[in-house]
Amino acid sequence: MAKLTEANLVTYSPNLKVLDCTLRDGGLVNNFYFTDEFVKDLYNAAIKAGIDYMEFGYKASTDIFNESDFGKWKFCKDDDIRAIVGDNDTNLKISVMADVGRTNHKRDIVNRADSPIDLIRVATYINTVPAAIEIIEDAKKKGYEVSCNIMAVSKVNSEDLMNGLKEIANSSVDVIYMVDSFGSYYPEQIAKLADQYVEIGDKYKKNIGIHAHNNQQLAFANTITSLRHGASFLDSTVSGMGRGAGNCFTESLLGFLRNPRYSLVPIMDFVQKHMLQLKKDGNVWGYDIPYLLTGVLNAHPSSAIRFIKENRTDYSKYYQELLDDTL
Amino acid sequence: MAKLTEANLVTYSPNLKVLDCTLRDGGLVNNFYFTDEFVKDLYNAAIKAGIDYMEFGYKASTDIFNESDFGKWKFCKDDDIRAIVGDNDTNLKISVMADVGRTNHKRDIVNRADSPIDLIRVATYINTVPAAIEIIEDAKKKGYEVSCNIMAVSKVNSEDLMNGLKEIANSSVDVIYMVDSFGSYYPEQIAKLADQYVEIGDKYKKNIGIHAHNNQQLAFANTITSLRHGASFLDSTVSGMGRGAGNCFTESLLGFLRNPRYSLVPIMDFVQKHMLQLKKDGNVWGYDIPYLLTGVLNAHPSSAIRFIKENRTDYSKYYQELLDDTL
Repeated sequence: MAKLTEANLVTYSPNLKVLDCTLRDGGLVNNFYFTDEFVKDLYNAAIKAGIDYMEFGYKASTDIFNESDFGKWKFCKDDDIRAIVGDNDTNLKISVMADVGRTNHKRDIVNRADSPIDLIRVATYINTVPAAIEIIEDAKKKGYEVSCNIMAVSKVNSEDLMNGLKEIANSSVDVIYMVDSFGSYYPEQIAKLADQYVEIGDKYKKNIGIHAHNNQQLAFANTITSLRHGASFLDSTVSGMGRGAGNCFTESLLGFLRNPRYSLVPIMDFVQKHMLQLKKDGNVWGYDIPYLLTGVLNAHPSSAIRFIKENRTDYSKYYQELLDDTL
Repeated sequence: MAKLTEANLVTYSPNLKVLDCTLRDGGLVNNFYFTDEFVKDLYNAAIKAGIDYMEFGYKASTDIFNESDFGKWKFCKDDDIRAIVGDNDTNLKISVMADVGRTNHKRDIVNRADSPIDLIRVATYINTVPAAIEIIEDAKKKGYEVSCNIMAVSKVNSEDLMNGLKEIANSSVDVIYMVDSFGSYYPEQIAKLADQYVEIGDKYKKNIGIHAHNNQQLAFANTITSLRHGASFLDSTVSGMGRGAGNCFTESLLGFLRNPRYSLVPIMDFVQKHMLQLKKDGNVWGYDIPYLLTGVLNAHPSSAIRFIKENRTDYSKYYQELLDDTL
């Protein structure tokens, strides 16, 4: 067993954690309408596969979103989670994401002792860091593990990012995530970003995580590059299911990891039983040229998602539209 | 403009070459049955996109293969190439691949002065290096640029590889290619391999190339990692078309390169006109779980291709079969 940055392709680091966020990022594809059987089977597959954390969805506020517009994993009520996991008497920890400004954390996040949730993942943009820290401290006081995802950092200038990172590192947070929201980073860039995050993480005793998107088919490469540069929390989704181009594939990641606790087999069985059908049912995600273009241009994927929904294939025209709209 | 290893994401190296091998590696998907319109449009798109070399296919011997079993790009007769390119009065160079043991090079490779071909790419396994050198010297004497692809090096022990590399480097060859035949290399491995090849290349004044496969969705990442470690000939195929999991996408590569000579637009137009239809017509390639498994296990993709052709989805059973057959 080796320290993170010393591990190689024969050894492994025991400190590494895999967080499967299929329900959360994948929920952005199907509005969180997963069947209970899907969720239950994913939960059992994750346990058997040795996955460390399973994210059930968002802790969105019903004051802001209409419950009838979404499946229940947009809201992740504790009772809905409990209906799947019971007392979760397993090694698999459970996380939910709390978006700054979209979560009524004071009301909806109860004490950990009374909840099946283990980890609250606070998602913020750089301009809402103080609000994020408020949620972090509240969740920490309630007994949770807490992480913070600073989103869209590829659009943040270095000075603001470093200031934001230090503010968050000064909080009670346990894990700080690099988030490649637009799938725009190349491995050489994510390596440098990881070095910056890890340097701050080492100083403030925080773990660093990576959440990658697959616009340029680099989500897996960027994830394992971050690992080699000291990131220890690795996000992935089954079959890469996630908004637009999707995420790092849980399958690829488990195929790469050497810790005998991890097994790819339960995930492959889950793909066979559920993911193939989900695709057949018309749920669309994964690499495609429009996502490549938003990745290359460091742009939000929303227009690419529209392009694909409209069954357009005039890539060059779309490229010109993108240049007009984003640069 | 910068030297190869000094280039970054704002500068570029003028020495870098892109070789599109859609017809050759893609021909393994459809037995080389491309329409003349497809080939002509690809040729024009490659010229407009600034691509440096376009590979038309194999120079296979009609003594060994039955012409009626394949499209014409399995054989790449000079007259068939000429019917597409005329005198090829452009900056795009033309290459063909000559497999050791499958090419009648003495008969079928004529003097360059009488041929539309510019580059002969000799493909060999480690145990046929002397035969490869014979073809290299013959092609060189006939006036061609010559490269050598040592295939399946992920299964070759380091001593044999270094010995083979030095033999080839001692020949008249211009370019030596790293070939990740099974898509099994991770970026950290391809970086080390590139360092070894480049060290020999520097000593013997040879360029180094990279031909990657996408079994683990790492073809693009491994290609640009090799570039940063000094490889200057980069193979790619449109939409990644190639045997099994396919190759590095020409689209991704052109999106990454900063040299203003390259343009993604003509390739996107080509995808819209031809590649979407090719997929609709039932030509299957690209990342899928069986290819991930052969990649992880450093195994030939043939059984994975069969698995997919048979519409099987019992991944775990296949994984056990693979373990039985390959380890």
